[in-house]
Amino acid sequence: MSTPDEGYPTSLGTSDADTITLLGHDLAGELMGKVGFGELAFWLVAGRRPGPGEVRVFETVLVALADHGFTPTAIAARLTLLSAPESIQGALAAGLLGGGSRFLGVTEDTGKFLAEVLQQAGEPLPDTDAGWDDLARQAVRQRRQDRQLVPGLGHPVHKRADPRTPVIMSIARQEGCYGPHLALFEAVGRVAPDILGRDLPLNGAGVCGAALADLGLPAELLRGFALLARAAGLLGQLAEERRNPIANDIYLAVDRNARYEP
Amino acid sequence: MSTPDEGYPTSLGTSDADTITLLGHDLAGELMGKVGFGELAFWLVAGRRPGPGEVRVFETVLVALADHGFTPTAIAARLTLLSAPESIQGALAAGLLGGGSRFLGVTEDTGKFLAEVLQQAGEPLPDTDAGWDDLARQAVRQRRQDRQLVPGLGHPVHKRADPRTPVIMSIARQEGCYGPHLALFEAVGRVAPDILGRDLPLNGAGVCGAALADLGLPAELLRGFALLARAAGLLGQLAEERRNPIANDIYLAVDRNARYEP
Amino acid sequence: MSTPDEGYPTSLGTSDADTITLLGHDLAGELMGKVGFGELAFWLVAGRRPGPGEVRVFETVLVALADHGFTPTAIAARLTLLSAPESIQGALAAGLLGGGSRFLGVTEDTGKFLAEVLQQAGEPLPDTDAGWDDLARQAVRQRRQDRQLVPGLGHPVHKRADPRTPVIMSIARQEGCYGPHLALFEAVGRVAPDILGRDLPLNGAGVCGAALADLGLPAELLRGFALLARAAGLLGQLAEERRNPIANDIYLAVDRNARYEP
Amino acid sequence: MSTPDEGYPTSLGTSDADTITLLGHDLAGELMGKVGFGELAFWLVAGRRPGPGEVRVFETVLVALADHGFTPTAIAARLTLLSAPESIQGALAAGLLGGGSRFLGVTEDTGKFLAEVLQQAGEPLPDTDAGWDDLARQAVRQRRQDRQLVPGLGHPVHKRADPRTPVIMSIARQEGCYGPHLALFEAVGRVAPDILGRDLPLNGAGVCGAALADLGLPAELLRGFALLARAAGLLGQLAEERRNPIANDIYLAVDRNARYEP
Repeated sequence: MSTPDEGYPTSLGTSDADTITLLGHDLAGELMGKVGFGELAFWLVAGRRPGPGEVRVFETVLVALADHGFTPTAIAARLTLLSAPESIQGALAAGLLGGGSRFLGVTEDTGKFLAEVLQQAGEPLPDTDAGWDDLARQAVRQRRQDRQLVPGLGHPVHKRADPRTPVIMSIARQEGCYGPHLALFEAVGRVAPDILGRDLPLNGAGVCGAALADLGLPAELLRGFALLARAAGLLGQLAEERRNPIANDIYLAVDRNARYEP
Repeated sequence: MSTPDEGYPTSLGTSDADTITLLGHDLAGELMGKVGFGELAFWLVAGRRPGPGEVRVFETVLVALADHGFTPTAIAARLTLLSAPESIQGALAAGLLGGGSRFLGVTEDTGKFLAEVLQQAGEPLPDTDAGWDDLARQAVRQRRQDRQLVPGLGHPVHKRADPRTPVIMSIARQEGCYGPHLALFEAVGRVAPDILGRDLPLNGAGVCGAALADLGLPAELLRGFALLARAAGLLGQLAEERRNPIANDIYLAVDRNARYEP
Repeated sequence: MSTPDEGYPTSLGTSDADTITLLGHDLAGELMGKVGFGELAFWLVAGRRPGPGEVRVFETVLVALADHGFTPTAIAARLTLLSAPESIQGALAAGLLGGGSRFLGVTEDTGKFLAEVLQQAGEPLPDTDAGWDDLARQAVRQRRQDRQLVPGLGHPVHKRADPRTPVIMSIARQEGCYGPHLALFEAVGRVAPDILGRDLPLNGAGVCGAALADLGLPAELLRGFALLARAAGLLGQLAEERRNPIANDIYLAVDRNARYEP
Repeated sequence: MSTPDEGYPTSLGTSDADTITLLGHDLAGELMGKVGFGELAFWLVAGRRPGPGEVRVFETVLVALADHGFTPTAIAARLTLLSAPESIQGALAAGLLGGGSRFLGVTEDTGKFLAEVLQQAGEPLPDTDAGWDDLARQAVRQRRQDRQLVPGLGHPVHKRADPRTPVIMSIARQEGCYGPHLALFEAVGRVAPDILGRDLPLNGAGVCGAALADLGLPAELLRGFALLARAAGLLGQLAEERRNPIANDIYLAVDRNARYEP
């Protein structure tokens, strides 16, 4: 019989008969009642405790991403609750499984795109709007040449402007968390219309990715925060489905309109 | 073709070209930066905005439930990330799917048990510790007679006392959120040893259920809050798995110890 | 460091450098090309190899349960593929998560109900239709008295008769697999209208549960076979969604009909 | 209110009061008892009914992929059942969610790789082993130059030879289903050692992908068949977990070896 000699290392939760330790702190004595939930979520993933300004930006992002109404993921969660009402974890999981490349992926894609452009640009970063615009122009042109979309641009409903974008920008500035990712994203918004030949607003999911990246959160986990935010939204959808069900009507509206086609 | 004539009603997210509305409020103008994430999660599920004291109790509960180290759900999430590293939503969902009757169910079971006892007792509720003890004694005896466990009692590791229990009690009192569910749960803790013939501490998952019930949250959705808390913990586990992987060692420790047995 | 001294026992798959063993047989030499897929699925769950007649009944049940068109689970799977097209396992899992008490549960509920009635009745079992009718009458009356539905009775669409029911009955008879669960279920169909005061046909999901129970499969895993059958159906739905997508239209039909209601 | 004017087209299941139609056939009269389960799964996904030889190859592949013992996905499914024993669909879904790029992805990756090489090569295809070897050599060299692994080569346990590979090859030949994907894959096995400088056997998951591709199944859905096969294997794991549980021992072996490391 064998397990790794050194055991399984973790910096998260451990416990013994009298104490529960989380992130190296006594859960009951040092964390409960003293750390907010969003703050803890940040800490758990980033491995460092955020400051109050960072918490405010972070929670603003989570609030922005929590619920977008009847998205495919919300509908999938409601239909799953209809079929298996005893398993709320199954309905929540079904909703989160839609958190992939298309509907929840913009946040992560934008964060990664901006991080790559910044990494390629290297130091020193621009210190004027004109400098950021130059960098953004190169990046947008490169995407266009590679026939790739620029992540974070455009929205099927908010065609002129996404109301979340300026609020995230403004709160990040207020809290001293406006960094190179947001600066580059704003510049992308300024230069893209000329290059692409049409007005595409900076969307809310994208600005959330830029803000999370400026908080120093790892790019490959940004989708994770979108999922956490959406978990709250999906619980809201499931609670509403219990109070005021619509999933059966959705199901019937589809099933009754089924048409056999070879 | 038909859809319900009245459309699909919702009090959650809706949007048009210029505005996103959530819970009847302008998301960008009235919620972002002004509502905390835990506060929003409460509001989404309960359909009413909590006060600051309620938010503090609620977030304390979420912090208490977020991560308990290498639980079966955390291990399942890590193993799923090992197999499908490109799908963080799949790994998170796999972890949440363990949020059923056994490991995450105590919170909901305790809340429901207390709510049923209170409902049967009817008005007026006891106004002395002795009165609460009488009610608790009847309830514990009834469970024992029905050969059912009393939910929220006992813990495999914290055999003497669960350090989370007094903290939740104390913060609920401080914030004016100590109600009949917590009072009854405390009384259960006082009377159970005599009736059951052994010391079983009030566990943390149970006190969280009592506290959530005293916040007026619907009993059949208490497991949902445990899932939300655990979503943050699982993201922490997945972030750590990326930084410092152990899932492959766990897998090998099991696979190498496989033994054929007809 | 510790693992269980005796290792982890299993009768399923094990392997070494040169051999893969499954169910105690050499996978490459004794199973591949010689065992059908349905046969293997039966064997894996039941722990015994079924005979050819049993395989035919078993596969007939799986075919009956594989796809029922635009069920809530099929719609949920398609919507999940829309949101996360790169993760077919996520879309499949989302669909299966609806396999709970309501839409896929009838198969298991019927099998369990019949098994309980038979167990209470004890030996010897009836040997005439009249005898089965007596037993069925008692069981249906008992359910009615307990204000419980009789599982396997009635169907929202097939109000007069479910076309699958007589086919399963007939094939089970042909293959010598018609046992007490099917006999009791048929009797329930004969006596229920008089007791309940209305015609309710024996539905297909119910007869499948009765047939699986007569094959000696464990009652608490009958839902598992419904899930396996549905996995094939969901793959068909997902393949069709890729060829001829409708999920986005479903999403828009819901989202455009959203109506804010406080 | 609006739904698409033309309804939602489907070639799969539809029904009215008296009939259930699947794939354009009467389910009860034309399919049940007359179509095998594997045959139906092929038909549902491919949109065409396979011949008997194709069914045999297809089911051989499913048998080969059904269970590989204590894989990460099997362990995740068992741990999920431990936590939520009432939700077999959740445990199955958790296991399937590991069916991503790493552990179940080889089948699909190999099929796609072979299909791309064949497509680039164009007509006419080689008609001698030497011709296939030339094509394989180019393809393997290209992968090496692009610093990409050749999918389907090598196995952590079966370092000399994977016993499944020759069986699939042989059955495909017997049944007249040995086509260009298998021919190219065999050639890859012949030429790769010289190019890569080490012996890497053609693994079982890879040959399954090649065989499925030669059956004309769509490359982007090959993972779906691996998932279907694995669904049967996971049900076997869950049935065994109920009869002879080990998940709690696995959990404890991990949890007791947890070691705090900042």
